[in-house]
Amino acid sequence: VSWYQDAAAPGFGPENLPYCAFTSAGGAGVAVRIGDHLLNLGAAEEAGLVAEAGAFAREHLLDRFLALGRPEWRRVRERITDLVTGGRDRVAPVLLPVADAELRLPFTVADYVDFYSSEHHAMNMSRILRPGQASLQPNWRHLPVGYHGRAGTVVVSGADVVRPWGQSRPDADSPPRYGPSARLDVEAEVGFVVGLGSRTGQAVGTGDFRDHVFGAVLVNDWSARDLQAWEYQPLGPFLAKSFATSISAYVVPLDALEPARVPAPDQEPPVLGHLVEADRYAYDLRLAVRWNGTVVSRPPFRTMYWTPAQQLAHLTSNGARLRTGDLYASGTVSGPTRAEVGSFMELCWGGTEPVTLGDGSSRTFLEDGDTVTISGTATGPAGTVVAMGDVTGRIVSEWRSQSAK
Amino acid sequence: VSWYQDAAAPGFGPENLPYCAFTSAGGAGVAVRIGDHLLNLGAAEEAGLVAEAGAFAREHLLDRFLALGRPEWRRVRERITDLVTGGRDRVAPVLLPVADAELRLPFTVADYVDFYSSEHHAMNMSRILRPGQASLQPNWRHLPVGYHGRAGTVVVSGADVVRPWGQSRPDADSPPRYGPSARLDVEAEVGFVVGLGSRTGQAVGTGDFRDHVFGAVLVNDWSARDLQAWEYQPLGPFLAKSFATSISAYVVPLDALEPARVPAPDQEPPVLGHLVEADRYAYDLRLAVRWNGTVVSRPPFRTMYWTPAQQLAHLTSNGARLRTGDLYASGTVSGPTRAEVGSFMELCWGGTEPVTLGDGSSRTFLEDGDTVTISGTATGPAGTVVAMGDVTGRIVSEWRSQSAK
Repeated sequence: VSWYQDAAAPGFGPENLPYCAFTSAGGAGVAVRIGDHLLNLGAAEEAGLVAEAGAFAREHLLDRFLALGRPEWRRVRERITDLVTGGRDRVAPVLLPVADAELRLPFTVADYVDFYSSEHHAMNMSRILRPGQASLQPNWRHLPVGYHGRAGTVVVSGADVVRPWGQSRPDADSPPRYGPSARLDVEAEVGFVVGLGSRTGQAVGTGDFRDHVFGAVLVNDWSARDLQAWEYQPLGPFLAKSFATSISAYVVPLDALEPARVPAPDQEPPVLGHLVEADRYAYDLRLAVRWNGTVVSRPPFRTMYWTPAQQLAHLTSNGARLRTGDLYASGTVSGPTRAEVGSFMELCWGGTEPVTLGDGSSRTFLEDGDTVTISGTATGPAGTVVAMGDVTGRIVSEWRSQSAK
Repeated sequence: VSWYQDAAAPGFGPENLPYCAFTSAGGAGVAVRIGDHLLNLGAAEEAGLVAEAGAFAREHLLDRFLALGRPEWRRVRERITDLVTGGRDRVAPVLLPVADAELRLPFTVADYVDFYSSEHHAMNMSRILRPGQASLQPNWRHLPVGYHGRAGTVVVSGADVVRPWGQSRPDADSPPRYGPSARLDVEAEVGFVVGLGSRTGQAVGTGDFRDHVFGAVLVNDWSARDLQAWEYQPLGPFLAKSFATSISAYVVPLDALEPARVPAPDQEPPVLGHLVEADRYAYDLRLAVRWNGTVVSRPPFRTMYWTPAQQLAHLTSNGARLRTGDLYASGTVSGPTRAEVGSFMELCWGGTEPVTLGDGSSRTFLEDGDTVTISGTATGPAGTVVAMGDVTGRIVSEWRSQSAK
């Protein structure tokens, strides 16, 4: 048994080495997780353990490291792998128990984009909202549909989520009203974190995905379905999504997910040239959605119709530049069965089919005090497990209207 | 005649004092414009001329100043007004000719939101796209429709705009294609710059607009109509807008626009309580759109159905927090006549009615090499003119596809 094995939280062995930002009694910094410890990268750099990267000492965020690009990401990863597998003594001075650290948002979110790339999810939403006329939009198989979300309300796992207020019009014959959302939902997604930026007027090809994207996080793109239904025509979701988006505290490097590569679904009709992948693959990330502790769904990421490489190519196909810290999420991950959907809208079929949780209580949408936790794992080398960090959040109702002046 | 009068560029007298960021032979800094000069605020602060603000020295952006909030904004404005009206001698050491400076993006754009608040524009777009069935969406008179844009591609006036590529499907019976946009358009808008942020879960009331918003810029929200038509269902515009958004280099303080306050249009039906304004007003900003030098339109900002105070209240009505540097734009400003529209889509009625420019050439959408300049003025105290900075951009075609690896 190696020193870093953590029976209580498997998946954080040296195959993983996800990055995070933390605050502890000793100060703030950036780290990689190994077992049930954090390896303080700033301290390690100052001790000469990760050589001359210059990206960690006195940094409170991963931004500088993310900007370095793939050759440096790989060099640092190899160095840390050597360190942690070389025995505990050398790294002991720069370790701290993860229980003694508070994890923070790990990077500055530049722009946040949310896609809509699960065919099962898109069809389910269509069936729920337009029974008998369900179909994909004409553009859906030709491009990964997406939109910009609010970067300033991306929060780290563990942050409470204040139930949003907003306008809704549940009855088309009555006027709209303004109040707390009554159909508050989750969206279980996988997010991708851009490290290396790109220049304006330059499309990033599908083959360049791993040169620009550093790693992945889990995402809960909280959604107020009643607000969304009323606001979204014709410019898309806005306040229904902008109140909070939670991400896991750990950014798992793409290199840790390499062993989880699997073929991606076939695409028919064939996509246009700029979306073609010479080496098309998905990541076999298996998610689990817990509602107050009860596993209600196990969304399979490998079923997504559009891959993260295609999403990145599409995002830049008009010449929009990338910046370090750009975050783009896959869209709700839903597999083919009800036990694999990534939203409660689908799980409870638009609110018509409640689920029963482990405590015997019944739910359709989120109630105040509810906690949702999304976890995810991939298979690492030689059958090891690579864990994504959980993304968890609790619904609170502490609404404050700013006092009139 | 005062020392700061600039016959070639009226509107930059002491009634205005807009803020900017610059680079010159002497270095980078932030400044206010007065006449044909910039008053270097960093140098002024170091010389003790603007007292203890601490927001300017060694700053290259307005971010620190914006975050200070309204009492400090007003105190600094009063101090600078005293300085520039007190004679040239005192300020001469901290002046530089505007011609010797390169103006830069004046603040870090946090989140960018674009609204859709001109009734004339919304109806024109509906008439063009759905002839015979034109109407406003059911939500349009109940809330200011808006969506998030891409903050990372907001550029300063003067930056070239690379013609975007993208998918379009001009013929529904043929497959989509990928290529340069053939329907590249402008949107003349007014943008509002948030200085003071707000807390998550706190709605900012309409009456608190001037506590949070520092000032205004002109915006050209470049739009690729062919990309937009194909991509926008069901999540709204994405790549059709995300390639570039140009803003003027000067942020005009709201205090400089106080004399331009006029009644805003009546709203029927009455809006819900959180959008009611105890003191409802518009700003009488008169815009002009020049296409290769020819004035093709004069959009009147005072005709907007939703005011910037209502837009801010809506934006935060779900509890989304504001950050310093948040930018929100009004949406295309179109008045009731063809000579007052803020887009070429409307000016040339969907491409069916070309306009003739001053050189005798004909246009519907933008051609490579075309330059569009939007200017705007308001009336200041005692009949003076307050100029918004121009926002100008030229269309270039320097498309680069990243070489395959």
